Amino acid sequence: MSEHTKTRVLTGITTTGTPHLGNYVGAIKPAIEASQDSNVQSFYFLADYHALIKCQNPKRVQESRLESAATWLALGLDTDNAIFYRQSDILEIPELTWMLSCVCAKGLMNRAHAYKAAVAENEAAENQDADKGITMGLFGYPVLMAADILMFNANKVPVGRDQIQHIEMARDIAGRFNHLYKGQYFTLPEAVVDEKVEVLAGLDGRKMSKSYNNTIPLFVPEKKLQKLVRKIKTNSLEPGEPKDPDSCTLFQIYSAFATAEETAAMRTDYVNGIGWGVAKDRVFEYLNEHLREPRERYNSLLEDPAHIENVLHKGAERARAEAATTMEHLRATVGLGRFV
Amino acid sequence: MSEHTKTRVLTGITTTGTPHLGNYVGAIKPAIEASQDSNVQSFYFLADYHALIKCQNPKRVQESRLESAATWLALGLDTDNAIFYRQSDILEIPELTWMLSCVCAKGLMNRAHAYKAAVAENEAAENQDADKGITMGLFGYPVLMAADILMFNANKVPVGRDQIQHIEMARDIAGRFNHLYKGQYFTLPEAVVDEKVEVLAGLDGRKMSKSYNNTIPLFVPEKKLQKLVRKIKTNSLEPGEPKDPDSCTLFQIYSAFATAEETAAMRTDYVNGIGWGVAKDRVFEYLNEHLREPRERYNSLLEDPAHIENVLHKGAERARAEAATTMEHLRATVGLGRFV
Repeated sequence: MSEHTKTRVLTGITTTGTPHLGNYVGAIKPAIEASQDSNVQSFYFLADYHALIKCQNPKRVQESRLESAATWLALGLDTDNAIFYRQSDILEIPELTWMLSCVCAKGLMNRAHAYKAAVAENEAAENQDADKGITMGLFGYPVLMAADILMFNANKVPVGRDQIQHIEMARDIAGRFNHLYKGQYFTLPEAVVDEKVEVLAGLDGRKMSKSYNNTIPLFVPEKKLQKLVRKIKTNSLEPGEPKDPDSCTLFQIYSAFATAEETAAMRTDYVNGIGWGVAKDRVFEYLNEHLREPRERYNSLLEDPAHIENVLHKGAERARAEAATTMEHLRATVGLGRFV
Repeated sequence: MSEHTKTRVLTGITTTGTPHLGNYVGAIKPAIEASQDSNVQSFYFLADYHALIKCQNPKRVQESRLESAATWLALGLDTDNAIFYRQSDILEIPELTWMLSCVCAKGLMNRAHAYKAAVAENEAAENQDADKGITMGLFGYPVLMAADILMFNANKVPVGRDQIQHIEMARDIAGRFNHLYKGQYFTLPEAVVDEKVEVLAGLDGRKMSKSYNNTIPLFVPEKKLQKLVRKIKTNSLEPGEPKDPDSCTLFQIYSAFATAEETAAMRTDYVNGIGWGVAKDRVFEYLNEHLREPRERYNSLLEDPAHIENVLHKGAERARAEAATTMEHLRATVGLGRFV
């Protein structure tokens, strides 16, 4: 299959925080597995233009970009097969964003969840200005996201449930452009929501998320990992009392990493009344064992930013070659072609 | 004086219509004179990204870009001194637009005249959706305009009165960025409004403007020019009756082209009761005489798009060299720098 007939899967990687177990289970692990499937053309990008919306701390943005890149590489992203790049290396993306802005109804953005939530917050706080603290970046980022997706004609975009609306917006915008300029310029992308993995719980039992401050970072040092696993919320059942694996955060985290057999064995131990201390130690040992090697690779990578830069540069070259061709076509389509 | 200590003047050229006498008098003529001043570093650009907001007709955008470039070159734009480029050749401009979006309050755009006028129109038509027909391009274009200006740290931006607000917005956005990232990254631009030239009247006596369909295109064939001059609205005074030059569109157009002496002579003729037919013929002859040479150059240029492309390419190289340096600095500032 040629690159152009393969199903194209595009994944954006947030670059405002440090990758945690929830990211790993919910996005990184399935994405890395997919990157090894030669029947799929995958695109992975560090969504660093998006990072500017929420983070005006340059050091944090820069660190997070580096940590995210190191994480994906340490975990075995196949960068020969997948195209792995930094969004901000593809100048054509903001250019396409502008083109799409010119066909995208403002009303569509008025209805975006993130914007509406920000307005609702202002209204609840009885701010005179419902748009207080809202930037044009926050308001318009679904258009940037549409450009991310449409630039590479992605067929499928794995997302969390909260992101489905953005994919629908990308479809709307693509359809509008196709209609106005009378052609099939863009593939209409589909959201892919993996129901199984999107709900990894954090230390407190809520969804693991940077915003809840309940995460277990993926590559913390061994001691710290142990400490965090011990903090995972359990209940007050004593050793010997049967425990319910299906409502247990600890079990969920374990099973996200373990094989089917290992998970089944742990399930039996729960029913047989394993004590929380023992269970936590076992989960820590298991995680630590499985994360040791990638953690070592991760730490080496962080010490060699030139290597990461080089990998991303190669990815950007591949992505830009395609983006440049696409944009040349689109420029001619809208009347911005060269004169000769 | 080095390029960087000279006063920088930036002028955007609309590319949705065919240049007319009003454009010439109001913008092109003073700008071309300024381009010959070696104490000023001028930037002129075909604002073709902006064209996409209002014009989804690719042929019209493309033609207008070519006609506009040919017009400015035919009239003697000094492209050795001035930097003359197509906006869409500078990919860094949409990139800067995104960066600025992330610091620009949405509330600022809510107050933009063009947007408010569109909303008012919807409300007057009792549309349920006040944003009906308004795109994100129309809503957000003051941010693009800020990027146009701030990219080259323009000190002065010659504009019509209706554009003053946009320059103020560019100042706001620049100030906000400077504040958030703790530095003097951008020069705060000043609007320059030339009161004398902004009000050239059209055939019907209203401001000459494509939107009023009352223009005299700059380089129409001789016969057509004559016909249009004869259509200029005058009053019913007979030959021999004294006429008021200061309320007369014909006189205004003449004086915009003629020397002070010629204008004074015509003023005397008005007072002495020149007939409208004679006056119109004289204005036609005068315009035709003065436009003949540039018209010939214009027509030759239109037949040689490769030459125009080449001139614009050289301009884009100069503009991009500076834009690339600026953006490298800004990328590092916001946390999007290279890792090594």
